[in-house]
Amino acid sequence: MYKYTHGGDVYDESGHFKISMLDFSAGINPLGMPAGALAAAKQAAELSIVYPDSSCRLLVSKLASFESVGENAILCGNGASDLIFRLVYAIKPKKILVTAPSFADYERAGRAAGAEVIYHYLKESGGFRITCELAAAIYTAAPDIVFLCNPNNPTGNLTDMDTLTAIAEACKSVNAVLLVDECFLDFVQDSGTYTAKKLLSVHKTIVVLKAFTKIFAMPGLRLGYAICENSVLLDRMRFYGPDWPVSTVAQAAGIAALEVGRKYIEKTANYIRDERERMTTQLERLGMTVYPSSANFIFFRDPWCGTIRDKLQKYGVLIRDCQNFTGLDSGYYRVAVLTNEKNTRLLEALKEVKAAWQNQS
Amino acid sequence: MYKYTHGGDVYDESGHFKISMLDFSAGINPLGMPAGALAAAKQAAELSIVYPDSSCRLLVSKLASFESVGENAILCGNGASDLIFRLVYAIKPKKILVTAPSFADYERAGRAAGAEVIYHYLKESGGFRITCELAAAIYTAAPDIVFLCNPNNPTGNLTDMDTLTAIAEACKSVNAVLLVDECFLDFVQDSGTYTAKKLLSVHKTIVVLKAFTKIFAMPGLRLGYAICENSVLLDRMRFYGPDWPVSTVAQAAGIAALEVGRKYIEKTANYIRDERERMTTQLERLGMTVYPSSANFIFFRDPWCGTIRDKLQKYGVLIRDCQNFTGLDSGYYRVAVLTNEKNTRLLEALKEVKAAWQNQS
Repeated sequence: MYKYTHGGDVYDESGHFKISMLDFSAGINPLGMPAGALAAAKQAAELSIVYPDSSCRLLVSKLASFESVGENAILCGNGASDLIFRLVYAIKPKKILVTAPSFADYERAGRAAGAEVIYHYLKESGGFRITCELAAAIYTAAPDIVFLCNPNNPTGNLTDMDTLTAIAEACKSVNAVLLVDECFLDFVQDSGTYTAKKLLSVHKTIVVLKAFTKIFAMPGLRLGYAICENSVLLDRMRFYGPDWPVSTVAQAAGIAALEVGRKYIEKTANYIRDERERMTTQLERLGMTVYPSSANFIFFRDPWCGTIRDKLQKYGVLIRDCQNFTGLDSGYYRVAVLTNEKNTRLLEALKEVKAAWQNQS
Repeated sequence: MYKYTHGGDVYDESGHFKISMLDFSAGINPLGMPAGALAAAKQAAELSIVYPDSSCRLLVSKLASFESVGENAILCGNGASDLIFRLVYAIKPKKILVTAPSFADYERAGRAAGAEVIYHYLKESGGFRITCELAAAIYTAAPDIVFLCNPNNPTGNLTDMDTLTAIAEACKSVNAVLLVDECFLDFVQDSGTYTAKKLLSVHKTIVVLKAFTKIFAMPGLRLGYAICENSVLLDRMRFYGPDWPVSTVAQAAGIAALEVGRKYIEKTANYIRDERERMTTQLERLGMTVYPSSANFIFFRDPWCGTIRDKLQKYGVLIRDCQNFTGLDSGYYRVAVLTNEKNTRLLEALKEVKAAWQNQS
């Protein structure tokens, strides 16, 4: 039986939105959707009596200048996950390589396309950092696709440009496509330093994956995009899925979000950094092992009271239990960095959970 | 290079909506989107800061009672075309069988999944009707999936229950999945008489495909669904594509559309019948060979002046030239049945095109 494995399930059993729930399980921008994007979405609903533009021409032209790439280097999809599936169906890999832990959809999509999944296990002793050992693993395994999430989900770890370059070289030499998932990169300070876009002109088989989902807080609208200098590959990805992936509403909201784009991202990244530092300090004071995160979420280990996810739900707080990530076992959690007020509520609830546990034992 | 092959492209080269264009190339309900659905879509945009319900639980429960099937028999997708691709990826057919002409995405999806495509050519002499010869062809070809569109696109031909049953029996005996695409069936009078839903309890490998796209005039929102009594197959279809196929906006609009569902459909079917009859008479008077349609579009052959599609564009009228359908050559066209006023404008433009041609020759 197919089972949903992600965060962000804020609905009850009959599908009603649980409005009272504080959702730390999905990493959505706490500043919300830009007002212009919401207004554009509403307006676009009126135009939804005709088909969406299959090629998202207007959105693609805005994205091209926003990302400083050519229009032919962009393909939009029904969220980033749509593009992951298009990629595997387009390439039909025999073997894929993923880090463990990482976002579950890489391995799932690989399996859907019939590939063998090779895991490169990240070491707890190294803080789950991705190092040049991954490049070595690529030479050895010679996969058809390598999936790299930067910063990584669920750890928040950032891979530096030297390591990324070594990984890209390894991929090139074994003829593997390298998908670099940068869906969380815009939350990072100085994201321009870390983006794999810098390597695109040399590495034609790098696919950079991005989304409006998290940074512009519009997961409900579904909008992601791939950037790649290999137009034959992008063309194949187009062929291997349906013709109208992106709704009229998502296209309009995306165009409007880009109007405030860079400024909104900068404001967000600053806010996130401040709150992340505050939360990290507090979590450590509560006895958690916190791994260094550059992203809009914090990954930590709870060495004491077991299933804090269930206990926090009684406080109306939903966090991500990471034990279903390949490469992790129980005790690992991911929490989003939300607004100051919400973060305080999480920390207060956690404090009470810990106190109750200490009284018990 | 991948090429868009469908109707409904109402955008200019830079992606701007051509508002002045009368679009007869896509078969969308001329009564428009139900007002409640549009209002719900706008409201749902506000809730799009969280992920959509991956399983569309609320929508599925409403659909189950609307379609008189169990909730477990329904899977929602990003338009019907998303479900076509999920089906082929889930089944990995070696061979698929399609009628020619029919909707192009069946063969495209089949090829994407690596299948050989067998064409069952419909005869012009038989008015392109689907007969029990299709059942015979299924016994001979023994495909893994058979795609049947009812009423067929682009012909508007309806397949009766006896023929449908014979086709289903043939599929059962060669172990083929039968996809019956009923995306246009709700435009037909007495659609209940023709639906393959009647066969679902006996034929567990029939998949009935439906969409909100046409009947509720919301192509821009992307919402389709599959009905099937084989829960293992539906579960596989869920696994073989991304986890959040349907946006929060589309789910809300779908739920609201079903509130007025049956009544709206009945009103639509009556309106369509009256206009279709009027247009058929007029098109025949203009010298067109009109094939009998039960759907919300009319399929005809122009025996005289050649490329009327291009000529009509000068009148701001867009129709579907069907020569890129497998099994058809030039001179075949499909026009949607729209509002009385718009249909009159099409007929007037066509009259002028004919007069100009007659003066010329």
